[in-house]
Parts: sequence; structure tokens; C-alpha cells
Amino acid sequence: MLNEELIIDLYRVGAIKFGRFKLTSGIESPFYIDLRLAITYPGIYKRLVKLMAESLSAFNIDVVTGIETASIPWASMIAYELNKGIVYVRKEVKEHGTAKLIEGDLKTGMRVAVIDDVITTGNSIIRAIRIVRDHGGDVVVAAVFIDREQGGLNAIRREGINAFALFSVIDMIDVLVNNGLVSNELRNSVIEYLVKNRVSTGA
Amino acid sequence: MLNEELIIDLYRVGAIKFGRFKLTSGIESPFYIDLRLAITYPGIYKRLVKLMAESLSAFNIDVVTGIETASIPWASMIAYELNKGIVYVRKEVKEHGTAKLIEGDLKTGMRVAVIDDVITTGNSIIRAIRIVRDHGGDVVVAAVFIDREQGGLNAIRREGINAFALFSVIDMIDVLVNNGLVSNELRNSVIEYLVKNRVSTGA
Repeated sequence: MLNEELIIDLYRVGAIKFGRFKLTSGIESPFYIDLRLAITYPGIYKRLVKLMAESLSAFNIDVVTGIETASIPWASMIAYELNKGIVYVRKEVKEHGTAKLIEGDLKTGMRVAVIDDVITTGNSIIRAIRIVRDHGGDVVVAAVFIDREQGGLNAIRREGINAFALFSVIDMIDVLVNNGLVSNELRNSVIEYLVKNRVSTGA
Repeated sequence: MLNEELIIDLYRVGAIKFGRFKLTSGIESPFYIDLRLAITYPGIYKRLVKLMAESLSAFNIDVVTGIETASIPWASMIAYELNKGIVYVRKEVKEHGTAKLIEGDLKTGMRVAVIDDVITTGNSIIRAIRIVRDHGGDVVVAAVFIDREQGGLNAIRREGINAFALFSVIDMIDVLVNNGLVSNELRNSVIEYLVKNRVSTGA
């Protein structure tokens, strides 16, 4: 299966790692995902971008929105592949006043896809969705490459927005276990971690 | 001429503006360039990206480097068009210590093109070139879309690096004057400003 090879390639370049990683929340995670490494490998990023472009093609979007900084390269490549516009949402700005929250030329009524590399709680994507809406954009879908399976996609759906991920952490680990790259014990410790840290997903 | 149409399109979306613009240096400029607006127009950005990709194809590069934040979309699209890797150089980091200066997986000896949207003095590109070199990259060329003609390209060449721009401000204004979109008086005031604010370009 093609996606199986892609997941193995992501593992080989270190886009998914196992060990002990301290998150900004203070919690220790047994895995770490960093898709920023993958942008240096055209053989990898092209497959990810094309998969995402295909998944988005049903939504009839005008613009792809990236989130400063990690998802800007991805949003740009997806837009390029789809022949659509790009905008990006800025990080929290320290200086008050003049700085823009969105770069690019977003117009009222444009149909927007918000892209991020990885989703955990969904908070940064929900912030981006609200900023795009405040600037007149019609957010029709939020899409990520990898879902850490901690409730983020459902949190977005509760905002009334379609949301999907190309892969979940468990999908990825299953492929790695089936290919003898990761042990069953490691898989179990990741699932234990996910269950313990799962955000309530509502009814 | 195709490039003439491209320059007119850039003017129409506000990527080049005329008026009174206070620069961060405190100097008042009679023109302002902001290519960030152009990323929302696929009909415009595709022509810029393809022109740049053609110009870079002779340099046999491995990786395209963007500079946070404005040139990351451009570097990403150029790399996608050329089927090359992407990295990007971070802004000055306030917190000391852990933060990376380069994102992506730059390897020693990789042949690198550094991309920026606009060049004035060249300082931010020269900083990026030095950071790439400190991380083992072999910078073979620096390229920008628009040269403000204030000595930046020569400053880069003095670092021993090839440097080029697709367009200069004067090229652009000449096209706009020839097409009746900008007056000759305005052109003269821009030239006067450029002469007055030209950085010494050495021998």
C-alpha cells in the first residue's frame, strides 16, 4: 500500500519519534511528531501534498490558509497544486495595534480550507478559523496531516466545520508495528498515554 | 511582453503602491512593495514562481531557503515547482537557548538558494546566508523577486554569492509609465528618492 510506504518514510526521516518528550503543557509524551523535517524531502512532501489536494478537491475552495509558522509551507504547496490562493494567520502579536492577523488578500465570501501539520487539542486551528471568519472568510473545512487523537477533530466539528486528518498516530504506529519497526509494547504505551490524556469529545 | 502584463497585474492587486510610506528606518519612501498580497492570486503567483524556477534551474540546487515569514510561501512554491527541498531561517529569537535558527533537515554540503520577496539593503538575506553556512549549507545563489535598487544585490555579491532579482523598482515603474498607469513626475520622484537613499555599492 502506498500510504504504508509514506508512513515508513516519515518515520525514517524522524517526522515521528518515540521516547520521552516533555510537552509545553508539562505532560510527558511517549511520541513526538515534527513534520517540519519532511519539507526538505520532495519525495515525501509531494506525496503528502497530493494526498491532501485530492482530499480537498471536493470542497470547492478558493483559498488555503496556513498558520504561522509550521503550516505555511504546506498550505503554500497545497494551494500551488490546486491552483488556489494562499493566506496565512499570524501568531499572537505582542505589539498592540498595527500588526495584521492575516497576511494575503482574503476577500469576503471566499471559501477557505484551514491547514495545519498536526492536531492535538485543535485550539490553534479553532483560533485560525475564528480569525478567518472575522475577516469575512467562509471556512468550509479544516484539514491536517496527522491527528494525535486527543480530541482536536471533534472540537473543530463542534464549531460546525468539516475536519479530517490524513493519518492518525495509531494508523502510523500500526504500520510501523506491522513492518517490524516499532514493538507492540511501545504501541501499547502510546495507546495508554492517549487514553489517559484524551480530551472529552462530548456526547 | 508577458512580464509587462505581470508587472501591471502586480500593480493592480496593490503589490506596488505609491504615496508616502514611513519605513522602519524613519525615512519616508514614495513607494511601497508588499508581495504578500500576491500569494492570494494563483494567476499571478504561478507566473512569478515559474519565472524564478527557470532562473534558478542553472544553479543545480538541492534546497530552497525561505526567510521567516514573508518568503516562506515563495520558497515553498519554488521548491515544489523545482522538486527540491525546503528549509527556512527563523527570525531573531528572543528566548535564548533552545530555539532553532533553521527549520527543516539541512544537511552539510547541500547546494542552497536563498529566496526573499524584496531586497533593500540585503541585510536580512546576508544574515540568512550566514546562518545557512553555519549549518553546513553551500549557498550558491540568492534571488529575489523585486530589487528596491538600494545596493542590496551588490552587498550580497561582496559575500561571494551570486545574486539576482527578477524585477527592479525602476523596471516596474517604467512599465507602469509606458502603460499610462503612473505619471512621469512620480517616476522622477522615485528616482530622486533612490539616488538620495542609495547605499554605497563600493568600487
